[in-house]
Amino acid sequence: MKILILGLDGYIGWPLALRQLAIGNEVCGIDNFSRRKNVEDVGSWSALPILPMKKRLENLKKEYGDKINFFEGDITNPEFTNDLVRKFKPDAIVHLAEQPSAPYSMIDQEHTVNTQTNNVIGTLNVIYAIKNHSPKSHLVKLGTMGEYGTPDLDITEGFMEVEFRGKKATIPYPRLAGSWYHWSKVHDSNNIMFACKLWGIRSTDIMQGVVYGTKTKEITDQSYFTRFDFDEVFGTVINRYCAQATIGYPLTVYGKGGQTRGFLALEDSIQCISILLDNPPEMGEYRIVNQFDEQYQVSDLAERIKRIGDKRGLNVNIQNIENPRLEKEEHYYKADHEQLKKLGFKATRDIDDEIQIMLDNLHEYRDRIIEKKDAIVQVIKWKLGSS
Amino acid sequence: MKILILGLDGYIGWPLALRQLAIGNEVCGIDNFSRRKNVEDVGSWSALPILPMKKRLENLKKEYGDKINFFEGDITNPEFTNDLVRKFKPDAIVHLAEQPSAPYSMIDQEHTVNTQTNNVIGTLNVIYAIKNHSPKSHLVKLGTMGEYGTPDLDITEGFMEVEFRGKKATIPYPRLAGSWYHWSKVHDSNNIMFACKLWGIRSTDIMQGVVYGTKTKEITDQSYFTRFDFDEVFGTVINRYCAQATIGYPLTVYGKGGQTRGFLALEDSIQCISILLDNPPEMGEYRIVNQFDEQYQVSDLAERIKRIGDKRGLNVNIQNIENPRLEKEEHYYKADHEQLKKLGFKATRDIDDEIQIMLDNLHEYRDRIIEKKDAIVQVIKWKLGSS
Repeated sequence: MKILILGLDGYIGWPLALRQLAIGNEVCGIDNFSRRKNVEDVGSWSALPILPMKKRLENLKKEYGDKINFFEGDITNPEFTNDLVRKFKPDAIVHLAEQPSAPYSMIDQEHTVNTQTNNVIGTLNVIYAIKNHSPKSHLVKLGTMGEYGTPDLDITEGFMEVEFRGKKATIPYPRLAGSWYHWSKVHDSNNIMFACKLWGIRSTDIMQGVVYGTKTKEITDQSYFTRFDFDEVFGTVINRYCAQATIGYPLTVYGKGGQTRGFLALEDSIQCISILLDNPPEMGEYRIVNQFDEQYQVSDLAERIKRIGDKRGLNVNIQNIENPRLEKEEHYYKADHEQLKKLGFKATRDIDDEIQIMLDNLHEYRDRIIEKKDAIVQVIKWKLGSS
Repeated sequence: MKILILGLDGYIGWPLALRQLAIGNEVCGIDNFSRRKNVEDVGSWSALPILPMKKRLENLKKEYGDKINFFEGDITNPEFTNDLVRKFKPDAIVHLAEQPSAPYSMIDQEHTVNTQTNNVIGTLNVIYAIKNHSPKSHLVKLGTMGEYGTPDLDITEGFMEVEFRGKKATIPYPRLAGSWYHWSKVHDSNNIMFACKLWGIRSTDIMQGVVYGTKTKEITDQSYFTRFDFDEVFGTVINRYCAQATIGYPLTVYGKGGQTRGFLALEDSIQCISILLDNPPEMGEYRIVNQFDEQYQVSDLAERIKRIGDKRGLNVNIQNIENPRLEKEEHYYKADHEQLKKLGFKATRDIDDEIQIMLDNLHEYRDRIIEKKDAIVQVIKWKLGSS
């Protein structure tokens, strides 16, 4: 298969490229390097050192030759995106080229507008490129479980059957996102659902849980590291806690810590995406899958990392701080995640093992975390977000 | 009250300004004149001649002095929008400054992207301006009944109570829009709902039916005419049919004509918006109202206009043409519209009377319709929309 990866330089994009090449597929990737730049802008960097794209590509070319190609560019540019799809005619496009941080989108007006413009217009250009030049391409789009928010109902996989005033219908599952970033993903989901209906193209919209971990099968040495963010803005909760534990920084739990979310190891995220690529939907189908392994409460995760860290002599402290976010700290949460299992997904990673591996990896680079430890401090207040 | 009207030069914006001034309110308006330009771009103009803004304003200044102000500008410019709200500190902002045409948004990629950028980013700038400079301002936002689409369920006013797997919850009513334009309005609705929750600002989101008519109480002579579009792109169904009947052009019914929608006379649209301005929601409230008077099937409307036109000797023909749109031609449709009635709305216009008045008005300007009659022809194919 020919796989086009939008956002190949990112946390998931890079290991996905390694996996797809390893199993014999042809990969073309693009990136505008905004993640590297945006993380720098918030005063941080990847805890694990990653190579510049030029070096990454040299390494891949040695192993895979013409099966890997890369172009620097931005999907908000319609000519770039159209040309890319027209020339490569991919079997599938994995769209990971969005501004991926909720806190970033909450910084101020400019960051809100940039996030929604980048994500909504970028996605519109991708679906137009498919329609214009490669209508059979399977669009695999990274959404987020955060699109659903935390309604007081079981969460289905994208659609639900309801009975209302004596009539039955299947409706899109309600979306109650909690940040401008999360809403941008909802806008994308709506646009993609419409494109499938309008033009008969096909897409899988992945409602992914929070991904954690440093390793996949193909990340065998430092030259293949994927980025690992631990700052307030781009670091997600388990990863950030592991970085905090590594340098003796208290694990900062927002509010009561009763927030429940779905989580997934990086290795298993790559497994899921690969399964979806091998099992495309029918033409015209808009398929939503909830992609996570287990649900955890944030405070339980902190306790878990403390327990594992303390055994290693890290002496981990937990600190409950004022919640900067607009979210419920205690709530009902029960989300379906059956579709990927039906397609063959089996979780291969145990969360405790994965935390062990992360702490091992991060220990070696603790000086890099210490150097940027100010970026861990939480400063963006969502409700009072400045102009 | 101080009312800021975004899109004052438009079909609804202009008569709304006349009404608000007539009842003693202070009005500040803005417009970027994109409607005049976009209608020209599709080869048409307003059937009723409208004055340039400079003249419109001179006339208003004579009558209302300092109570009317106008600035040319674009709300996608954040500085312009912030300055406007900071200086005027309106009690309410009526946001009519969106690209309002579904067919326009379906022309090609550029028009899709422009529509969603203009509408989503414009609205984001408006809500940020409110939060930054005038948090008590009541945002009255023009949405559309088209956000709901035609689900096989009764349509509520924005929210519905459901029971699902043994739990009850109130959820946003599902949105199943049918064009890129309609989806841009859904994205806006979602963003505004979130802003009310996040910042405690307040908004009324109007799900308006299709508006028709040439007159309001204040439009007493030609110098106060509001625009009247009859082209394929910007003309809505009753208005376009009346223009077609006026010049002996067959009424073009899309497909079977079983499409049912809610409709409202221009005079009553202005009444409704004025009622909403007089009855703002509480701080933090996001209120949705369905704003229309009666439901009609498109084929019934054509028959109605034929009947009235034939009596006047117009000899009206009806032609069923291939439906260019992605829509059901026969479907269940039953939409609540109680909230405005509870606030005091009573329809004052009878549709047959209104059609009479329109045919009267348009007869006088039939040469203007004839001159641009090629713009009536339907050419934008939604499903096969070019790139």
